[in-house]
Amino acid sequence: MDIKVYMHSVGLAARESSRVLARAGSVIKNNALLAIADAVNDDRAELLVANAMDMDNGRIKGLDAALMDRLELNEERIDSMIEGLHQVAQLQDPVGEITDMGYRPSGIKLGQMRVPLGVVGIIYESRPNVTIDAASLCLKSGNAAILRGGSEAINSNRAIATCISQGLEAVGLPKTAVQVVNTTDRDAVGELITMTDHVDVIVPRGGKSLIERISADARVPVIKHLDGNCHVYIDDRADLKKAVAIADNAKTHRYGVCNAMESLLIADSVAAKVLPELNKIYTEKGVEMRGCEKARTYLDSILTATEEDWAEEYLAPILSIKIVAGIDEAIEHINYYSSQHTESIVTEDFNRGRRFIAEVDSSSVMINASTRFADGFEYGLGAEIGISTDKIHARGPVGLEGLTSQKWVVFGDGQIRQ
Amino acid sequence: MDIKVYMHSVGLAARESSRVLARAGSVIKNNALLAIADAVNDDRAELLVANAMDMDNGRIKGLDAALMDRLELNEERIDSMIEGLHQVAQLQDPVGEITDMGYRPSGIKLGQMRVPLGVVGIIYESRPNVTIDAASLCLKSGNAAILRGGSEAINSNRAIATCISQGLEAVGLPKTAVQVVNTTDRDAVGELITMTDHVDVIVPRGGKSLIERISADARVPVIKHLDGNCHVYIDDRADLKKAVAIADNAKTHRYGVCNAMESLLIADSVAAKVLPELNKIYTEKGVEMRGCEKARTYLDSILTATEEDWAEEYLAPILSIKIVAGIDEAIEHINYYSSQHTESIVTEDFNRGRRFIAEVDSSSVMINASTRFADGFEYGLGAEIGISTDKIHARGPVGLEGLTSQKWVVFGDGQIRQ
Repeated sequence: MDIKVYMHSVGLAARESSRVLARAGSVIKNNALLAIADAVNDDRAELLVANAMDMDNGRIKGLDAALMDRLELNEERIDSMIEGLHQVAQLQDPVGEITDMGYRPSGIKLGQMRVPLGVVGIIYESRPNVTIDAASLCLKSGNAAILRGGSEAINSNRAIATCISQGLEAVGLPKTAVQVVNTTDRDAVGELITMTDHVDVIVPRGGKSLIERISADARVPVIKHLDGNCHVYIDDRADLKKAVAIADNAKTHRYGVCNAMESLLIADSVAAKVLPELNKIYTEKGVEMRGCEKARTYLDSILTATEEDWAEEYLAPILSIKIVAGIDEAIEHINYYSSQHTESIVTEDFNRGRRFIAEVDSSSVMINASTRFADGFEYGLGAEIGISTDKIHARGPVGLEGLTSQKWVVFGDGQIRQ
Repeated sequence: MDIKVYMHSVGLAARESSRVLARAGSVIKNNALLAIADAVNDDRAELLVANAMDMDNGRIKGLDAALMDRLELNEERIDSMIEGLHQVAQLQDPVGEITDMGYRPSGIKLGQMRVPLGVVGIIYESRPNVTIDAASLCLKSGNAAILRGGSEAINSNRAIATCISQGLEAVGLPKTAVQVVNTTDRDAVGELITMTDHVDVIVPRGGKSLIERISADARVPVIKHLDGNCHVYIDDRADLKKAVAIADNAKTHRYGVCNAMESLLIADSVAAKVLPELNKIYTEKGVEMRGCEKARTYLDSILTATEEDWAEEYLAPILSIKIVAGIDEAIEHINYYSSQHTESIVTEDFNRGRRFIAEVDSSSVMINASTRFADGFEYGLGAEIGISTDKIHARGPVGLEGLTSQKWVVFGDGQIRQ
């Protein structure tokens, strides 16, 4: 099979299906989601057999334990795929909403209507449940989807693709509204990210290196989620009880997530009060601390942070700690080292909060709250296709709306331009 | 001068200035715009001398009349540059607006705040007035600007840059908030569009070939305005009086503009009524008609349209005409050949209007109005940096808001994630 020819046929079919999906109402899209859920439920045995093949191949290839865990499907994970489909069916359909409708001096009535982007390409790694997740969000937002999963999950993804096709056919939507790329050839990705005629946006889901690689070669726009080097700054006007609770929660609630704090900044004048208390918590929980020279004058037991530490997303029980003179140095440090994901200030001072919000250039900026709140579910988006660290199009948690665009609609009564 | 080193120093300075601009209030930004207007007014003589050098060089190089016209500055054009600056000063500042503010179940208060993109690179051709235009829109929206004009206008642009610097300095903003690239070396463009660390978005203003070239090589996101192959479809349920007026206005109001109709679709059953009337108007106004075979059975005097005609943006008194069976064929033709700029249906039928709006995939979709309304001023944006034919980020006329993004803001009272 010629990969270029194959991928272009996939793209062409996606473009055609996208026109059908764009005019499909919420009812038919929701029915499709429920029909896919039924198909997944009916095909449990087939899904587990297919997944066992992937797991066997993974063992032979010697995949590590974390990868094998992500690859695995079991009854519980199939349950949550089904639950996810039901949840997306219940979300409000963003398509068709018209906002800012009003008359212009010429007499035309003008508004902006929310419409699907068209064709969305999703590139992801081992978790087969992403196939259902991504398919359901694209379908609900009226987009055709081209899904390219990891080669280690190809059998699981093919089996899931069969369920999706069944669900689409059951409600009369084209099977090609969601296509799983049916080859593990790496060239398929190269085609997918450069078919600007057939694909409107690429959403890569995976590690930073995957996303950087895709972004470097893509001609299609990419909604990027790079790393989450998140900061908490404890101001000298902080309520120190809140400060300790937030610094604890932001670091230790979960370690391997992109909205965990990786770097803690503390105003010099409160460091002596707050650091010993935090030291106790972090030590108990096994968090390794790496501090600047000044931090080490308060806690001489901790390691010295290197230049690399300030830029690092540990995704682990490790924390870098810097003592700063005040809010100016904190903002400067954050804007220099941050990955523009999420930062929080702890302060009771109105103007400092206001400055932090205005001047910190990140997708989520918080006052007196844990960075862990930065996700689509906590923000009420209902679902999340990713968290964008881009500024263009979508910033921060991306839900259904991030998979749409707005077109201008004009209602006239024969108006012509004078 | 090493171009790479030079452009990176320009980019770095822009990034630093962008942080100052992001926190600058409306008053200081407006004062800067007015101070630039004063500087332009004071420097009229210098501007005309610099422009005369460009005009002389242009004559020596043998630039064509249209290009020479675009290159020319005169008192009237300087007046309108000054007027433009005053107008932008009067526009509402989009930065800082917080929308959709509300409490989440966790107790955090969440909203979305409009913020500048950061650094905007504008690449344009011969018109020196674009330098002021682009600078003022970037400044008002809180973005640092890197402006790269055509080499034929370098002296005019340098003189304008001096006025801009004077205005910025007069109010205490950094001079590097607006930088005019001070070299005609083509490699400067290559650097500008690939400096992803220093530049957040590129807006090319010029012909399709310029924009395609830039888009092909850019690593920085590009807000593209390609061509405007706009359609009017006269439905068989159209009010034929409105239909004739709209088809006349959309084609003949101005020929060289991107929102002019380039292709007219007519439902077969009304063609015999409407075509002779339009033929009379177009013939009187000197519009060359090129029709499908069927159109030529109604008007045998007109030329035969080729496949290329359906995809062509004439920007001239030429029109392609196709007779279609009805709305299905019209939508199909438009979605296949259109450049997704602007399309209009003329119909009195509610459902057909509704279908056209939903199914035609263009940045502006109209019912019973001339395509000529698709611009930033008619839409009330107050100003226009361009018309985007992209779907990502900004679609259709792009005003100040298109030069901004939204970040999430969270106001808490010590909330931590459970």
